[in-house]
Amino acid sequence: MREIFEAELKQVGDDLAEMSRLVESAISRAGTALLTADLQLAQSVIASDHAIDALERELDERCVLLLAQQQPVATDLRVVVSALRMSATLERMGDLARHVAQVARGRYPAHAIHPLLEGTFSQMHDAATRVARRTTTLLTTRDLTVAANVERDDDLLDHLHQDTFAALLGPDWTGTAQETVDVTLVGRYYERFGDHGVSIAKRVTYLVTGDFADDRGQAARA
Amino acid sequence: MREIFEAELKQVGDDLAEMSRLVESAISRAGTALLTADLQLAQSVIASDHAIDALERELDERCVLLLAQQQPVATDLRVVVSALRMSATLERMGDLARHVAQVARGRYPAHAIHPLLEGTFSQMHDAATRVARRTTTLLTTRDLTVAANVERDDDLLDHLHQDTFAALLGPDWTGTAQETVDVTLVGRYYERFGDHGVSIAKRVTYLVTGDFADDRGQAARA
Repeated sequence: MREIFEAELKQVGDDLAEMSRLVESAISRAGTALLTADLQLAQSVIASDHAIDALERELDERCVLLLAQQQPVATDLRVVVSALRMSATLERMGDLARHVAQVARGRYPAHAIHPLLEGTFSQMHDAATRVARRTTTLLTTRDLTVAANVERDDDLLDHLHQDTFAALLGPDWTGTAQETVDVTLVGRYYERFGDHGVSIAKRVTYLVTGDFADDRGQAARA
Repeated sequence: MREIFEAELKQVGDDLAEMSRLVESAISRAGTALLTADLQLAQSVIASDHAIDALERELDERCVLLLAQQQPVATDLRVVVSALRMSATLERMGDLARHVAQVARGRYPAHAIHPLLEGTFSQMHDAATRVARRTTTLLTTRDLTVAANVERDDDLLDHLHQDTFAALLGPDWTGTAQETVDVTLVGRYYERFGDHGVSIAKRVTYLVTGDFADDRGQAARA
């Protein structure tokens, strides 16, 4: 029994890491598509989101079967329940990458992001890509120094998000309503992406240390 | 054992219904605060969100204990895993109500919503309040005709959300950048609120019928 359980649990961990790698690829391509007005790249992100959704369904079924057949308790149970939660979070991160790509596609051949904010969104793109890459590393290694770095990049995303509002409401903003809408939406997508990364970092930290730094305070500040 | 399990399961159901009632109150007050620029009402929504968060934590702990101590299988297991998911969804709906209230508070004493869009947001408020009320009814009665009505109101929210973009990008829009940002964000909050209501409607439908109408197609259209 125990070997089967260990093998199943390893598969759950592998699936989570695989989902995270797909999210990493999606957010990286979505940001590049946004910043370079690359229609094909945007479409590739939109078309590949179903693979993340399919992995989530597989992973969830595997977890429910694991609960039913192996009836884990204590730490094992915590791992399975956390996996259910993290798969939902990763699926949502994939959706947000898709939303960024949809904005890029919707404005093509124009650039969605007004020149005044290209630098800010380039930084958001870098920070979100790091969040995704570190999430994969964290799920693979459970190295908690990586968790701290995810939180730092989320803080950076929050600051950059505030910068977008400062720009939109400042005296130099001459963008159209469409440009204002796009900056508002894409800024929000990146900000949420960072929140989800932190949610996974906190869950992995909890699994390793047993200490769940509650992220509701975080959400309340957002 | 079975009686204890039944009692615990009933408590889980009661907690979900209670969360949903709190969400219903929050979204209703948030929308009124937004439409009438009522600072005190907005603050009451923001201040009471922690109660929804606390209920989610309690409910999750109860579910994990239930899994560990009662080791449910088949339908019982499905009910507990669904409860874990629905509590996360209700918590998020509470956050969205809080976000609407935060916009109302941020603009006070001004009205956040430009007069051109007051009618649209008044309809979004009504639809979102109905979604929340019906979610409570659905969780209490498991009457699937109510689930269909939740989906109808979500469709209405999606249409109204599209109307906000049509207004923002149309020739009659004379709002400031702040007004454009607020309409964009609040419109998005309402649209997501409806999605979450549908997610719960689908989960309850699945519990009753065993048939999970996949909502990923829905998400992809959003």
